[in-house]
Amino acid sequence: MKQSLAFIRTNHEMPSIKPLDPNERLIRAGYIHSQNDKFISLLPLGKRVLQKIEKIIREEMNVLTANEVSLPTLNSLQSLDSNERQAYSAELFQLNNRNKDELYLTPSHLEILSLIVKEKITSYKQLPFVLYQIQTKYRDELNINGMFKNREFLTLDVYSFHHTTENLEEFYEKIDQVYSAIFRRLGLPYKKVLADLGSYCGELSHEYVVLSENGEVTIAQSNQSDFAVNFDVAKVTLQTTIPHCEMKELIKEKISDTGVSADDFQTHIDIPADRIIKTNVYQLNGELIVVLYRGDHILNEVKLKNVLNVQSLKLADEKLVSELFGCTTKYVGPIKLPVHVKVIADFGIKSICNGISFGNEEGSYYVNVNPERDFAINEYADLRYIQEGEPSPDGNGIIQFAKGHEVAHIFKLGAAYSEQWNASFLDEQGVSKPILMGTYGFGVSRLFAVAAEMYQDEKGFIWPNSLAPFDVHLITECVDHEEGWLLSEQLYNILLTYQFEVLFDDRQLSIDVKYKDANLIGLPVQVIVGKKASEGIVTVVDRRTGQSYECAKEELIDRLNEFFRVY
Amino acid sequence: MKQSLAFIRTNHEMPSIKPLDPNERLIRAGYIHSQNDKFISLLPLGKRVLQKIEKIIREEMNVLTANEVSLPTLNSLQSLDSNERQAYSAELFQLNNRNKDELYLTPSHLEILSLIVKEKITSYKQLPFVLYQIQTKYRDELNINGMFKNREFLTLDVYSFHHTTENLEEFYEKIDQVYSAIFRRLGLPYKKVLADLGSYCGELSHEYVVLSENGEVTIAQSNQSDFAVNFDVAKVTLQTTIPHCEMKELIKEKISDTGVSADDFQTHIDIPADRIIKTNVYQLNGELIVVLYRGDHILNEVKLKNVLNVQSLKLADEKLVSELFGCTTKYVGPIKLPVHVKVIADFGIKSICNGISFGNEEGSYYVNVNPERDFAINEYADLRYIQEGEPSPDGNGIIQFAKGHEVAHIFKLGAAYSEQWNASFLDEQGVSKPILMGTYGFGVSRLFAVAAEMYQDEKGFIWPNSLAPFDVHLITECVDHEEGWLLSEQLYNILLTYQFEVLFDDRQLSIDVKYKDANLIGLPVQVIVGKKASEGIVTVVDRRTGQSYECAKEELIDRLNEFFRVY
Repeated sequence: MKQSLAFIRTNHEMPSIKPLDPNERLIRAGYIHSQNDKFISLLPLGKRVLQKIEKIIREEMNVLTANEVSLPTLNSLQSLDSNERQAYSAELFQLNNRNKDELYLTPSHLEILSLIVKEKITSYKQLPFVLYQIQTKYRDELNINGMFKNREFLTLDVYSFHHTTENLEEFYEKIDQVYSAIFRRLGLPYKKVLADLGSYCGELSHEYVVLSENGEVTIAQSNQSDFAVNFDVAKVTLQTTIPHCEMKELIKEKISDTGVSADDFQTHIDIPADRIIKTNVYQLNGELIVVLYRGDHILNEVKLKNVLNVQSLKLADEKLVSELFGCTTKYVGPIKLPVHVKVIADFGIKSICNGISFGNEEGSYYVNVNPERDFAINEYADLRYIQEGEPSPDGNGIIQFAKGHEVAHIFKLGAAYSEQWNASFLDEQGVSKPILMGTYGFGVSRLFAVAAEMYQDEKGFIWPNSLAPFDVHLITECVDHEEGWLLSEQLYNILLTYQFEVLFDDRQLSIDVKYKDANLIGLPVQVIVGKKASEGIVTVVDRRTGQSYECAKEELIDRLNEFFRVY
Repeated sequence: MKQSLAFIRTNHEMPSIKPLDPNERLIRAGYIHSQNDKFISLLPLGKRVLQKIEKIIREEMNVLTANEVSLPTLNSLQSLDSNERQAYSAELFQLNNRNKDELYLTPSHLEILSLIVKEKITSYKQLPFVLYQIQTKYRDELNINGMFKNREFLTLDVYSFHHTTENLEEFYEKIDQVYSAIFRRLGLPYKKVLADLGSYCGELSHEYVVLSENGEVTIAQSNQSDFAVNFDVAKVTLQTTIPHCEMKELIKEKISDTGVSADDFQTHIDIPADRIIKTNVYQLNGELIVVLYRGDHILNEVKLKNVLNVQSLKLADEKLVSELFGCTTKYVGPIKLPVHVKVIADFGIKSICNGISFGNEEGSYYVNVNPERDFAINEYADLRYIQEGEPSPDGNGIIQFAKGHEVAHIFKLGAAYSEQWNASFLDEQGVSKPILMGTYGFGVSRLFAVAAEMYQDEKGFIWPNSLAPFDVHLITECVDHEEGWLLSEQLYNILLTYQFEVLFDDRQLSIDVKYKDANLIGLPVQVIVGKKASEGIVTVVDRRTGQSYECAKEELIDRLNEFFRVY
């Protein structure tokens, strides 16, 4: 495409703050437009990158013999039951039509598709099959971050339907191979990690995390095996050491005597953090639940949710706490709680000898607190985040942390939904069985953002050929030089003939601006028609290394073929 | 693709009513799924047809050097001004996010794109350029009709930006060539017709109507020239004959004396329809407007809106009419109206001699009514629909009607919007000028429905190769016959190697069911591996004609190449 006819508007000035923010880079290099940091448009360059990703995805979906479909985005709220509505909760965009029918913008098509499959599938002969779509989804996200996370985003969603467990499991392996192939083809370092099922019911789930220091996800991985798990759900397998304890007399004291404020008390008091008992109070169906964990640990609410078997947690009302415990939440401790209040403690609490806790009375605390002697615990559970250096849950080596961006999430659902929805088939013996299912999400626009973060240097983007909006940037210095101009046009046509995707900078602008634009846009290779045009010689520049060499026009195609063969 | 792995579920039973309804056919042949006749899913076959259309569109857009973009569907209501909101009126889907920001689902991207262009374009050097997208749009339609018209639909929208009128006009011709090429490549008979600008401001607009007896649009076209216009806006150029009139005395009568009811009065009274004066009363900014037209004519509200320069018409409140005229709307006539009420009459009223009208009094009417003598007219205008047999507005021949489906609508907007939005550029002399614009819509999912209507017979679809989801339907009768099965698999692989898109019916089903499915699905050619498989002979069937011939397996590729060369 001739750049004079392309809608590519760049801004070379790099802001001094956050120089590497990929959203900002994409805007300045003319890939996307952002209105109020909220509404993202893909401009021609950005659209081409996304189409490259889509093409790779479709090729890999063909490997799975997956069928592409396109399900409606606007659906009737009636097709969601109350559980499903609750699972999406505040992220669901709801609206009405003029007849006041309740509609919603679909954040996932599992429910809609199940209705169709339930209607169409009756026999094992019609199974298995795999459907997918590459489609815009909508979620009312709170924390918007450009192409990384937005209310409108492009995803690949794959749905598989099976007649046997083996067949589902085989497919769960196959989708891993295909997703891995996508990351490999894009050159992105990734890790498949065990993950939480989140709001889904089912058997197993994994996330695909592209490793990056700026990532929002923490991975806990073994230093001696392939084991990797989302930090949020990494099990703590470290056995709690129960020390020999010479229990001292329990004493109640006043914080005002210690010289620190109540807010700073637990962090400033002169006692090791692993002897501090921290207390959170949650409210569940009107009941209060007291959760205990050690001062050197971080409470993991994902684990707590799973232990309590709830979708969301609610901290206790201050009013209710005050009525039942006679103090504000801040001063709640485990001693002398009302009898009907359930106490759940992290395993780490077992190790506490002569610890410290708040006193269930405004401004008071206890010293020499000993669990079991001084208070009862209804249930011990694994409620905290794992720490670096602790044993890996798989038994091999110790845990190390890494950061990354979650790009894909796959779920082995099994029969969880089909039983709920009565989606069944008759097997070879004529016995009715639930259709086994899996669902596999992949963030397409998110992948674009992640790749944009990875593939850049101080001058702009350095796209791999698999993602670059064009293969070759043909840049002419000879807009006003007849011989050079003719050569430029000739090369443009030859490159097109040889099926290269070419961006031809034919604009009447200073060569400095053109170079800056070319480096900012970041196509793999630049071909410059300049001073030696009349000798039929051009300059070829490798954007990655900046290395350049001169090349006779007759050799250009061979040199480029060679370039892309090893690129 | 192997049919056993494809999600294609057909229903051979054809309903006795509306046997040719394309939505029903698409559902029964497994192309689409419809939930409550409202929410349409594209199943694998339907998705493939739509992708064929998209591919053709993208190829034609490349001819225009148009840049593909992808603008957000969810936008802030703040980006629409009150005029724009009014123009979309009840068709606009509005919603809120959890922060109560007002959002809408974009029915057109003209406003959003103009914001971007205004920000990015400053100089004539950056013009012209063309942007397009193939995207799902949302409109709160009242009359839903499957793939033809729905609340969620796929469109191509093209936007062009120019620095001179000549350049805009040249492009308006080019887009016509490209749209025409799309219809030609799909084999659809179409007509480009002059159309109303609708809610748009601008200079000129044309619709592309695919001719069909079942179409919702009426075209008025000349029998002697290329002239064609949407019936809604066809100008009446017939000169009204003003007869020599021996005016008789105006007499007021009672309907109760005529023996017909008031509702039937104007149709049953014994007087030629061209002597009846019909009266409508509209309300505009609190004022009442009386509109007169002849009994043999149909009032055209599109023309009336244009004459009154309003976006929508409102019939007068019964209460207001009764207060001002002293009777119900039914009995309003042109005689003895309150002086401040404006009267607009269609030109046809001029010809009335001793006509008849209602009496502005409950149950009364006048005979021997003569315009100008008996009542004043503020303005004459062309307010009625043209009739077949009347002169063509271009001066050549007479008007004939045809029916069709509107599939595309193009608008030469000129400076109308850029002046409103201050989107300007500096020309070569440094003078600020408004950017000239055009917008060009094309209904992609609608085109699918229109093609589905056209390409079928009593057995199912007969797709042209440009639209068929696959090229070849390979059908094996030999699922349990080893030699035949091997031949089937071998041919499947050979066909794929030769780049044919093949649907391979490998299912364990009766051959009758397979034939019925194949005819219903309607791929251009069927290759049947049957009784002569062991001799290496297959049967090739042309779906269009039903003609079949035997063919040795070695000759198959040549025969198919020949088939598609002339298909």
